[in-house]
Amino acid sequence: MKYRKIPDETIRRMPMYLRALSLVEQEGQQTISSRQLAERLHLKPPQIRKDLSYFGAFGTRGIGYPVVSTAQQIRTILRLDVPQKAALIGAGQLGTAIAAYPGFSVFGFDIAAVFDNDPAKIGKHIGRRVIEHIDAVDSLEDRAIRLAILAIPSEAAQACADRLVRAGVKGILNLAPCYLVVPKRVKVVSIDMAMALGVLPYYM
Amino acid sequence: MKYRKIPDETIRRMPMYLRALSLVEQEGQQTISSRQLAERLHLKPPQIRKDLSYFGAFGTRGIGYPVVSTAQQIRTILRLDVPQKAALIGAGQLGTAIAAYPGFSVFGFDIAAVFDNDPAKIGKHIGRRVIEHIDAVDSLEDRAIRLAILAIPSEAAQACADRLVRAGVKGILNLAPCYLVVPKRVKVVSIDMAMALGVLPYYM
Repeated sequence: MKYRKIPDETIRRMPMYLRALSLVEQEGQQTISSRQLAERLHLKPPQIRKDLSYFGAFGTRGIGYPVVSTAQQIRTILRLDVPQKAALIGAGQLGTAIAAYPGFSVFGFDIAAVFDNDPAKIGKHIGRRVIEHIDAVDSLEDRAIRLAILAIPSEAAQACADRLVRAGVKGILNLAPCYLVVPKRVKVVSIDMAMALGVLPYYM
Repeated sequence: MKYRKIPDETIRRMPMYLRALSLVEQEGQQTISSRQLAERLHLKPPQIRKDLSYFGAFGTRGIGYPVVSTAQQIRTILRLDVPQKAALIGAGQLGTAIAAYPGFSVFGFDIAAVFDNDPAKIGKHIGRRVIEHIDAVDSLEDRAIRLAILAIPSEAAQACADRLVRAGVKGILNLAPCYLVVPKRVKVVSIDMAMALGVLPYYM
């Protein structure tokens, strides 16, 4: 199924809708209105209706959106309808926290491999995974792992990203406080805790 | 000094400018053009010129922006010209990683207190700080700590946020994968690693 071009901002909100719908589904509710979704997500109902219309989901007035099928449509668009394997690069404190992070499973993500360059860590376990030497990232393509989470110091991040790109990685979640230069075909999303904290005093 | 109303999107980019300028300053460069800044930050030069103009920074054609004074202006606007104390709530794996996160110091943030509800953790150290019982958050106002970083499970996040608000906290960096309801006077910025990862497969 093909969808028309969806704005990045809408794509960015889609995982929010998916998680909210998953929760609603667990609660046993079969339909949800844009107003109810808006309350849960602190968004405006017209925004939600517009976003959902991009992928052909239209609520019925007075009834709302069917929870299960709308969630399934979002999963299909986001390609979260199949389990997604991700490699975790960095088995330090942040990497360890990420490996234990409960939020990934809602979206079907599986931390399928963990890498580090510290000889003392290689062979040890992090969750169910054995920590592999960073040189083994070259095997990611063969293992059909095309997502990577970078939880390493800034100084090492660019060289590691270059290597991941050569290993066929197509998407990188970067947690190092730095910018990564990658080819256009690779998508990078960066999370920077200091940047996020940095805006707060302005509003206080 | 008063500034005219600055859009949230511009404020969100300001810490990026500040960090880039801090790096440039360390490298010993005295001026930087919007083009050079754009290359470092993967932004468009006109956007940078527009953002910087909001707070009265104007580059000189062919010379650029003075690095030190522009950085100082941004610090003043963001209220990062004074050290900002933050409380860390949650001394689990994520909290421990945050306490060790090197990115905060660029912005003058100091994790001045750490709290947890696990009796086994109270009294132990995390970095230089002793972990305090969560009940002690009521003292935050007296200790002039008005920023908090929430690194606790989703189920506990809202109740904890309510308590922080009562203790006079004005800004919360929320790392739990959930939404927080707070009074308008309190600013919440949420970081959700699963949401960020969730958009990547769409682009692959």
